Amino acid sequence: MSGQIEELAEQVLAGNRRVLSRAITLVESTRGDHREQATALLQRLSPHAGNSVRIGISGVPGVGKSTFIEALGMHILGKGRRLAVLAVDPTSALTGGSILGDKTRMEELSRQRGAFIRPSPAGSTLGGVARRTRETMLLCEAAGFDVVIVETVGVGQSKTAVADMTDMFLLLLLPGGGDDLQGIKRGIMELADLILVNKADGDMASAANLSASDYLHALKLLHPRTRNWKVPVKTCSALKGRGIPEAWELIGEYRNTLGESGELEERRATQAKAWMWSETAENLVAVLRDDDCLKQRIPKLEREVMEGRIPATLAAAELLELFLSKKSS
Amino acid sequence: MSGQIEELAEQVLAGNRRVLSRAITLVESTRGDHREQATALLQRLSPHAGNSVRIGISGVPGVGKSTFIEALGMHILGKGRRLAVLAVDPTSALTGGSILGDKTRMEELSRQRGAFIRPSPAGSTLGGVARRTRETMLLCEAAGFDVVIVETVGVGQSKTAVADMTDMFLLLLLPGGGDDLQGIKRGIMELADLILVNKADGDMASAANLSASDYLHALKLLHPRTRNWKVPVKTCSALKGRGIPEAWELIGEYRNTLGESGELEERRATQAKAWMWSETAENLVAVLRDDDCLKQRIPKLEREVMEGRIPATLAAAELLELFLSKKSS
Repeated sequence: MSGQIEELAEQVLAGNRRVLSRAITLVESTRGDHREQATALLQRLSPHAGNSVRIGISGVPGVGKSTFIEALGMHILGKGRRLAVLAVDPTSALTGGSILGDKTRMEELSRQRGAFIRPSPAGSTLGGVARRTRETMLLCEAAGFDVVIVETVGVGQSKTAVADMTDMFLLLLLPGGGDDLQGIKRGIMELADLILVNKADGDMASAANLSASDYLHALKLLHPRTRNWKVPVKTCSALKGRGIPEAWELIGEYRNTLGESGELEERRATQAKAWMWSETAENLVAVLRDDDCLKQRIPKLEREVMEGRIPATLAAAELLELFLSKKSS
Repeated sequence: MSGQIEELAEQVLAGNRRVLSRAITLVESTRGDHREQATALLQRLSPHAGNSVRIGISGVPGVGKSTFIEALGMHILGKGRRLAVLAVDPTSALTGGSILGDKTRMEELSRQRGAFIRPSPAGSTLGGVARRTRETMLLCEAAGFDVVIVETVGVGQSKTAVADMTDMFLLLLLPGGGDDLQGIKRGIMELADLILVNKADGDMASAANLSASDYLHALKLLHPRTRNWKVPVKTCSALKGRGIPEAWELIGEYRNTLGESGELEERRATQAKAWMWSETAENLVAVLRDDDCLKQRIPKLEREVMEGRIPATLAAAELLELFLSKKSS
């Protein structure tokens, strides 16, 4: 390892926030030499990572995620813990950008010394954004942040990606209910380890209670994701600060349950293994695409496939054969 | 190509349903020799595929998908077309099986000579199930079915997979509305080319109309997936047969719009290319995993990654290096 990387590593370990920011920028870069340095840095820091509570938070736009994270974050800091907030928000190919408009998010939290807030890395593929977020999480842990919140502001698959990199998945919902419990939320409810119905204040308070009991009922139909853990459904008001200490308590309980049963280690191990393989697949395709001999053949095959003249399966088989025969010759 | 495969191909092209079933079973098999035969068969049949209207249909459990497909299917047959119905339903690792309980689906349709109904192939990964469904679609087209409906009964990503293999994505919704319009459905509504609020009969009729106008309003916030096409939102009652001819009309209009703008060809080309690359990635990882030299190293690397001793990124980089150096030596 170069002295430069060692210096970077030591400063990250010492909790230097400016250097942490620089390290994250390095990890986010796609340049080949940066990638090499990032890998060396991550190797050096890995043994110092893994000691945080990793919390994924999701919810529909308008549910009050930022307000909630700010309230929970201030509470966590009050308990003497240090908190990093990361975001996963792959630019949607359809919407052409984040659906989140407000730029002035978590103002109070962002001014605190114990908090570190990093927006989502730019990128168009979920895989790329997810990898960089995972690596950023390791860096933050090495820098001594003992709670990491990963927020997903995107739709669809990004929720699964966030659930796949955290210990716990917290779902924020709005008061409301009835038909919308039926199905589309099912996939996401299956991921949830804790459900909070936010905006339980003013006119909405009783609707929120009703929703919570509806959701609790709906959950009974689902197989639990975690052994020995019945997913709690509570109400809260991030705006009024109500239910926030209780939420943090539940996060702690969950974490203990997961730790005692050995499921925490198990889940992290499974996550790391899956990550290794998806990374391997991406690397392999990149090498194949970059192969000098194949470079001429690829556009031709792509064209034939795109024109429906040969099935994708066949083209893929040919690419593989060419790649392997070239490698072994 | 062997004479056996040529015989199979000719029988499929002649529209022999029993042979088509056998060909699909071949395509669904994961055995190496079967895979080879399947690839040869697909290569032979590809030039005869692509001539159907490919419709993806999704909706929450309870929305009446089977009743709808049966009603639309009977209408389509009445127009002298031939229809294949396929399903994508990757067994969820969480629920441990299909959430769809009823076995006696589409009874009337399944008795018709012009209809061919094939349940979802078994399999635990969405990628595998999706690949086999794509290939089955090609076989059905070669057998002369000029409408193919791909139904997704699973949750989450399977909807994207189905939208990625069809020309048009039809979303069925239930009467209801309000808060549930807000966000979780946003990802899926972005995929929809036609939205039908089903169960618009009896007590629900006016609620369905209200929902349709709510959804139409919500759609205005979204970027359309298709140029020159404003996603229609209509009501129907599959049970009473209401709105079914109109739905088929809209499907035809959509198809014409897509065809005239050149977007149909474009979309299919993009889909085929993406399929080629995901297939290539899967193949490459399979070869790497099976490499004699790496077979010893892989479990050790997996263990180190799972125990958090090295980052997944590093392990992936080492796997790649070993694989490439071994291949070139």
